[in-house]
Amino acid sequence: MEENAVHPVLEAIRNRRSVRHFTSDPVPAADLEAILDAGRWAPSGMNNQPWRFWVVTDAAVKNDLAQWTQYGSVIRSAPVAIAVFLDPEACYHPIKDAQAVGACLQNMLLAAYALGYGAVWLGEILKNEDGVRKTLGIQPSWPLQAVVALGRPAKRDQTSSRRPLAALMPGSGF
Amino acid sequence: MEENAVHPVLEAIRNRRSVRHFTSDPVPAADLEAILDAGRWAPSGMNNQPWRFWVVTDAAVKNDLAQWTQYGSVIRSAPVAIAVFLDPEACYHPIKDAQAVGACLQNMLLAAYALGYGAVWLGEILKNEDGVRKTLGIQPSWPLQAVVALGRPAKRDQTSSRRPLAALMPGSGF
Repeated sequence: MEENAVHPVLEAIRNRRSVRHFTSDPVPAADLEAILDAGRWAPSGMNNQPWRFWVVTDAAVKNDLAQWTQYGSVIRSAPVAIAVFLDPEACYHPIKDAQAVGACLQNMLLAAYALGYGAVWLGEILKNEDGVRKTLGIQPSWPLQAVVALGRPAKRDQTSSRRPLAALMPGSGF
Repeated sequence: MEENAVHPVLEAIRNRRSVRHFTSDPVPAADLEAILDAGRWAPSGMNNQPWRFWVVTDAAVKNDLAQWTQYGSVIRSAPVAIAVFLDPEACYHPIKDAQAVGACLQNMLLAAYALGYGAVWLGEILKNEDGVRKTLGIQPSWPLQAVVALGRPAKRDQTSSRRPLAALMPGSGF
């Protein structure tokens, strides 16, 4: 790697943003599969892979899904919504399973960015997980973890910020 | 991007492996900072950034830390151990905070891979989080989330597997 060049992985991690406005362009199946595949390859405790995906592209189902969040317009605007659930039979530890889903979601967001898509991780919808399960026909025992809205970005929300590293290392002289 | 070329982000997601054997080469501060910075840029609910990092490079402290896991040899072998905690004052939702930490950890693992390092996410040590807090002098209210062992790979555990995508999409005709 050249001196001063930023590795594409670091670039993606740094410049990925939550995208909430999409064009109407569909997401080709090959790209959608690549994004799901990125989620699939996340690490998990005991390699238990507790994540399960529901891909919603049908406009009527997407509209029905949208009612369960105050960010319904984001879901309606996106050509694809990916609902992520836990399979209780695959779970083994509440915190570690949730962490694994977070790694899985981040892989999908990074893959979407890498392929020129925009995406946003929606968590507020969890408060209506009963409704989401009803819309998608999912058994009550499966906990909703997040919905990812995905498509070609119509515009990108360019700014974001994080705490400085020093504020994240309260015990370290690093 | 060339036809058939795999984007480096997808390559990293697909080929990253848990690395448990390290050379004695130290991790230069600039690289360690780039890896922590990748964690820092993870998404989190409400952008609450609940993660906090303790970086351990001192051999005596690392040995003390190693006693709290059956994978102590991994920690002793690694030039760097990064303990990740939640700051309770930054938390807002148990599942979403754990997911955010998962995204943060995955960013660090991917960044480590991109920079030529090996790393492994250790979760079993959580059962002894009291001990870890004692070793590191951390207040009892801060939940341990994981320890990442990091260094130049002495060998890579090359094989891993995942369920096929179809098995992760029980409700979909995708």
